[in-house]
Amino acid sequence: MKILFIGGVKSGKSLNAEKYILSLTNKMPVYLATTEFIDDGMSERIKQHQLQREEKFITIEEPMKLKEVICMQKVPVLVECLSMWINNMMYHEKSFEEMEEELKKIMSSDKDIVFVLNDVGSGIIPVNKLASEFIDNSGKLSQIVASKCDEVYHTIAGISTKIK
Amino acid sequence: MKILFIGGVKSGKSLNAEKYILSLTNKMPVYLATTEFIDDGMSERIKQHQLQREEKFITIEEPMKLKEVICMQKVPVLVECLSMWINNMMYHEKSFEEMEEELKKIMSSDKDIVFVLNDVGSGIIPVNKLASEFIDNSGKLSQIVASKCDEVYHTIAGISTKIK
Amino acid sequence: MKILFIGGVKSGKSLNAEKYILSLTNKMPVYLATTEFIDDGMSERIKQHQLQREEKFITIEEPMKLKEVICMQKVPVLVECLSMWINNMMYHEKSFEEMEEELKKIMSSDKDIVFVLNDVGSGIIPVNKLASEFIDNSGKLSQIVASKCDEVYHTIAGISTKIK
Repeated sequence: MKILFIGGVKSGKSLNAEKYILSLTNKMPVYLATTEFIDDGMSERIKQHQLQREEKFITIEEPMKLKEVICMQKVPVLVECLSMWINNMMYHEKSFEEMEEELKKIMSSDKDIVFVLNDVGSGIIPVNKLASEFIDNSGKLSQIVASKCDEVYHTIAGISTKIK
Repeated sequence: MKILFIGGVKSGKSLNAEKYILSLTNKMPVYLATTEFIDDGMSERIKQHQLQREEKFITIEEPMKLKEVICMQKVPVLVECLSMWINNMMYHEKSFEEMEEELKKIMSSDKDIVFVLNDVGSGIIPVNKLASEFIDNSGKLSQIVASKCDEVYHTIAGISTKIK
Repeated sequence: MKILFIGGVKSGKSLNAEKYILSLTNKMPVYLATTEFIDDGMSERIKQHQLQREEKFITIEEPMKLKEVICMQKVPVLVECLSMWINNMMYHEKSFEEMEEELKKIMSSDKDIVFVLNDVGSGIIPVNKLASEFIDNSGKLSQIVASKCDEVYHTIAGISTKIK
């Protein structure tokens, strides 16, 4: 089973995704943390996320090799989050095609996965070329993931609405 | 009863919130205008809003002390808008905790309130630290408000869809 | 019949709008391409769009005179996209009232039209005045179009949800 939680910054998508995956299984799910680059603001967020999930998840940190980590797991995996993974892949100059290929392989696996993704495409397109490329990649990859998901939830103000 | 209308800039959320609150009561509701800082563009918007609501609302202007004003009212109150209130609170260096506390008190009152809030979190995160903090505060506070609301509407292109 | 597909950048709205209009008719619909200004990134997008629609559409390029072109057609018209049209109109210093008038005339015609529009209002409001004006115009015009549409679809991650 594959599930996608998509929503804006601080929309509550992560918390709802965590609740969802905990309801999927009696075992302790894997929390696949993709964060690589950490500034003060992020370290605060990460700390908050960690407090929220304490004793409920096995945390694995992996900024890039999602498929490799996911395919080794025997329990459901929460990918937190795809946006940071796209960011990391772009930083390390991976092409869109490499990201696409990695995600397609993950989507065709038989693993139970809950994905979290930032919706970044509903504001004005920024002048910054890298930001614009990130928005494009995020949008296109979100379509690939969502098309293979059994369920997709759009989150706003903490409310996750099933759109697929 | 507590209702939240959330949506992007010029999505039509304000007009729909006004229609909604007018349908709630036979009395003239209070229009709680939170705008404090006015530039030319905003003064034009405010003028347009005033024309739209003429003779239907009692207008009270209060940029910060929402709870104090709301708790004195005997008719439904339209808070227009929470985003501007967050902006004002941040400008006057109020902490997130102070905003959270104020909102929690309002949400636990027995007043009928319709809130309007800008959805600002679905674009790329801006480099500007204050803007980024605003987005975070807005997202987190929207979750607090929405969790206590009886109904939540997401507005896009003038269409308000009930999501809770 | 009038239909609106609204959604963020790379949300999949265009592809879904194309599928929709092809399901409306046995004839070859008109693809009204509004793009006027082309940079490298856009020329790549245009090429991709052209590949997607090859042999299914009659393409007409018109950056501004939508009504004139639409009213001559005897088959359904896909307007791809309204956002670029607003952009072109603003660049050529057309007023909001001129855009509004043009759209109102189009909406009162008896033609079958599918509109595609970028949702740009759910991020932070940019400091750039032109960008801010564009967001305002886009939001207000989207309300005018949506209010006259028979159906409106909000697209996210390739999934178009009917909101009207």
